[in-house]
Amino acid sequence: MMRTRPLKVALLGCGVVGSEVARIMTTHADDLAARIGAPVELAGVAVRRPDKVREGIDPALVTTDATALVKRGDLDIVVEVIGGIEPARTLITTAFEHGASVVSANKALLAQDGAALHAAAEQNGRDLYYEAAVAGAIPLIRPLRESLAGDKVNRVLGIVNGTTNFILDKMDTTGAGYQEALDEATALGYAEADPTADVEGFDAAAKAAILAGIAFHTRVRLDDVHREGMTEVTAADFASAKEMGCTIKLLAICERAEDGASVTARVHPAMIPLSHPLASVRGAYNAVFVESDASGQLMFYGPGAGGAPTASAVLGDLVAVGRNRLGGTTGPGESAYAALPVSSMGEVVTRYHISLDVADKPGVLAQVATVFAEHGVSIDTVRQQGKDGEASLVVVTHRASDAALGGTVEALRKLDTVRGVASIMRVEGE
Amino acid sequence: MMRTRPLKVALLGCGVVGSEVARIMTTHADDLAARIGAPVELAGVAVRRPDKVREGIDPALVTTDATALVKRGDLDIVVEVIGGIEPARTLITTAFEHGASVVSANKALLAQDGAALHAAAEQNGRDLYYEAAVAGAIPLIRPLRESLAGDKVNRVLGIVNGTTNFILDKMDTTGAGYQEALDEATALGYAEADPTADVEGFDAAAKAAILAGIAFHTRVRLDDVHREGMTEVTAADFASAKEMGCTIKLLAICERAEDGASVTARVHPAMIPLSHPLASVRGAYNAVFVESDASGQLMFYGPGAGGAPTASAVLGDLVAVGRNRLGGTTGPGESAYAALPVSSMGEVVTRYHISLDVADKPGVLAQVATVFAEHGVSIDTVRQQGKDGEASLVVVTHRASDAALGGTVEALRKLDTVRGVASIMRVEGE
Ligand SMILES: NC(=O)c1ccc[n+]([C@@H]2O[C@H](COP(=O)([O-])OP(=O)(O)OC[C@H]3O[C@@H](n4cnc5c(N)ncnc54)[C@H](OP(=O)(O)O)[C@@H]3O)[C@@H](O)[C@H]2O)c1
Ligand SMILES: NC(=O)c1ccc[n+]([C@@H]2O[C@H](COP(=O)([O-])OP(=O)(O)OC[C@H]3O[C@@H](n4cnc5c(N)ncnc54)[C@H](OP(=O)(O)O)[C@@H]3O)[C@@H](O)[C@H]2O)c1
Repeated sequence: MMRTRPLKVALLGCGVVGSEVARIMTTHADDLAARIGAPVELAGVAVRRPDKVREGIDPALVTTDATALVKRGDLDIVVEVIGGIEPARTLITTAFEHGASVVSANKALLAQDGAALHAAAEQNGRDLYYEAAVAGAIPLIRPLRESLAGDKVNRVLGIVNGTTNFILDKMDTTGAGYQEALDEATALGYAEADPTADVEGFDAAAKAAILAGIAFHTRVRLDDVHREGMTEVTAADFASAKEMGCTIKLLAICERAEDGASVTARVHPAMIPLSHPLASVRGAYNAVFVESDASGQLMFYGPGAGGAPTASAVLGDLVAVGRNRLGGTTGPGESAYAALPVSSMGEVVTRYHISLDVADKPGVLAQVATVFAEHGVSIDTVRQQGKDGEASLVVVTHRASDAALGGTVEALRKLDTVRGVASIMRVEGE
Repeated sequence: MMRTRPLKVALLGCGVVGSEVARIMTTHADDLAARIGAPVELAGVAVRRPDKVREGIDPALVTTDATALVKRGDLDIVVEVIGGIEPARTLITTAFEHGASVVSANKALLAQDGAALHAAAEQNGRDLYYEAAVAGAIPLIRPLRESLAGDKVNRVLGIVNGTTNFILDKMDTTGAGYQEALDEATALGYAEADPTADVEGFDAAAKAAILAGIAFHTRVRLDDVHREGMTEVTAADFASAKEMGCTIKLLAICERAEDGASVTARVHPAMIPLSHPLASVRGAYNAVFVESDASGQLMFYGPGAGGAPTASAVLGDLVAVGRNRLGGTTGPGESAYAALPVSSMGEVVTRYHISLDVADKPGVLAQVATVFAEHGVSIDTVRQQGKDGEASLVVVTHRASDAALGGTVEALRKLDTVRGVASIMRVEGE
């Protein structure tokens, strides 16, 4: 069965992920060969700093000219683990034009240019696989794209960023504030020196765009994803969450509207009940819930990042793409036939937890309740707490649209008796 | 892109699972067509009782002659959801011989004859897919076979039978005994009139054989799986488990030996710590942990049975197999190249919780400890409880082989001071 000609693989990038890909390609060479049906050969490694010592990598394979590498014309598979938009994008399209299939872990690029990259792959009759781009080692893209291909997915709800989950978990378990927890995450290597992409939700938003597109067989652009970071979550928010039997997670949520005619995708911190399986996802782990018509609720859990776990996902794709090459075929490409519109955040329906600082005098609750009623937002529970002439009102609503809630809050701010809106947080997973 | 010739699908069996497959094929016809690239047409439905009213099924398609149906010669895909060994086995091989690919949910058959069926598929250049055979809707076979194809799986540990999990969960949460919990499971439709296959672990053992084979790229026969049912788990066992911060689950465990040179597969009740994610799997849900070199720990969770969830898995396979047909290719077949020997239960290494009824007199503990030491089984903790001249000793061991533990227990039974061995339970998931 075994072909003698090896599959030639070029590695673009040899950092956290790439070095692990190279390592496993060497240590597990026999297994990979048996599973693909042909040996794989590392044909070249493109990096920025050619002189860096890279254990286990033949220096003769290392180059700084990634473009020349992908233009060689004899490559079967290009593994792109450089990250960012350029030069990754041009290198990938050049690889397709020169006959290679591509495996990438690049969520930022896939979320921004997935459609064009898929088109380039299809035009050249090549594969574009990127399991590693979402939730690291956790098999998610393949299950959504293939295992659930006979089902109708209605909702994807998950923790897809390990850095922020580490920070929020710290805040929850130790009572630390955001900055303190971030400092610890940085010290332990869970957060980068510039944590913006994680804590402002950009990374999770890219993953949400990718997941929504695959789950709903439609195109969801990065700009379509409503994004709120978690830098403003406070210890007080965690205290409020606890009182409700909840914790706070940064969630990526992709939903099909109830009438099935549109979808939404969003990233924001939210309270979820402690009884929800996502509530007990600790540290830098990721987990994703998928709800479908026939299969009901599925959950996928595992390490969402790290060199080795991400390399595992890359290599799973490498085996699949390698098998496709040998079989002269390609796997499933982009599936965007449903072409559903993406609704704006205003149409998202969920529950809310709102803390108001109010004057401690009679009639305030009635005033506040009237504002909610006027905006069609129905109240589930209210808790009133008075101290020193000041008082706070904690309102938890029934399901309402983001637009209706926004209107309510705007009107509340105009009430004389409302001194301020201390916090607004969505309540999910019920 | 859409071909006009539809893919012809025959349904063998139209019971709990088959009727849902037929329903979804009708209601989701457009989506299936878009995802496969050609419409699917239900070409025939084989059942035992032709006159039973079957909602949504054209009576003209129904036949009792399954053999004639699979011999038609114009079928693209045969979906086997009859169950059991015969006639399912002959029907599947006949289907291959007449040019069809096969999707099956039949764990009993796959565990017993998987190798021969895979060979028949390969000989005829056809696909054999069976995601639904293990853990219902949960994508598990595809992730193991494809997503983790670039990794080295060392362990699969899971709850793969919903009926027994329902019963154990009831015993745990209500303090009920086995019979009482079984009666409730039967009344609620979670257990069949004859629950033997579930409660004696036959169903889980079939799944363990399938999972071990795929995870370790080797052949594991049903006979290779050590199997113990859960009918002898008592309320007292749950009380002991609780004292240790554990609960009891019926686990399927597939392991690679530490030296990598052999594998084991087993099904038995075991204590697992409450902090382990499998401990909180409630009711009839299933969940499977997978541990690999690079990816670390992954977990897959969802409904392990039921008509619609199982049909979701069947239809996912149908889409994949349909795409392969259109592309003139086949997916990954059996991967048994590793050809690892399956070790016997004696070589399995784990921890044990042992309750002994002993005479309440000085020196008993020393005697008992000596027996453990003589057999090379190291003790982690001992708890001694005396009441009315009788006493009990609860011993929790460090990791030891099943053979060593067996020898220890045999020797303990011969001690005058040991009145009886009240229970032995393995401790997993630590
Ligand atoms: N790290 C994770 O846990 C993780 C998880 C999931 C997905 N990902 C994704 O995987 C990708 C790689 O991440 P990483 O953490 O491995 O990044 P990294 O450690 O920063 O490595 C980047 C690599 O790309 C090389 N490189 C940078 N610019 C280049 C250029 N212009 N030409 C050639 N090589 C260039 C670097 O070369 P030098 O070695 O010479 O600097 C380095 O080897 C990103 O898309 C990331 O989002 C990462
Ligand atoms: N039920 C689940 O939750 C579940 C989950 C995972 C996997 N599975 C697997 O799925 C398969 C089907 O299970 P099920 O629960 O759907 O079984 P079921 O409800 O008993 O249905 C069996 C079907 O097969 C038909 N049948 C029986 N003998 C036949 C024969 N000789 N020729 C033609 N048709 C025959 C029956 O016909 P009549 O309708 O005329 O009786 C019935 O339609 C089994 O392999 C099972 O292990 C089931």
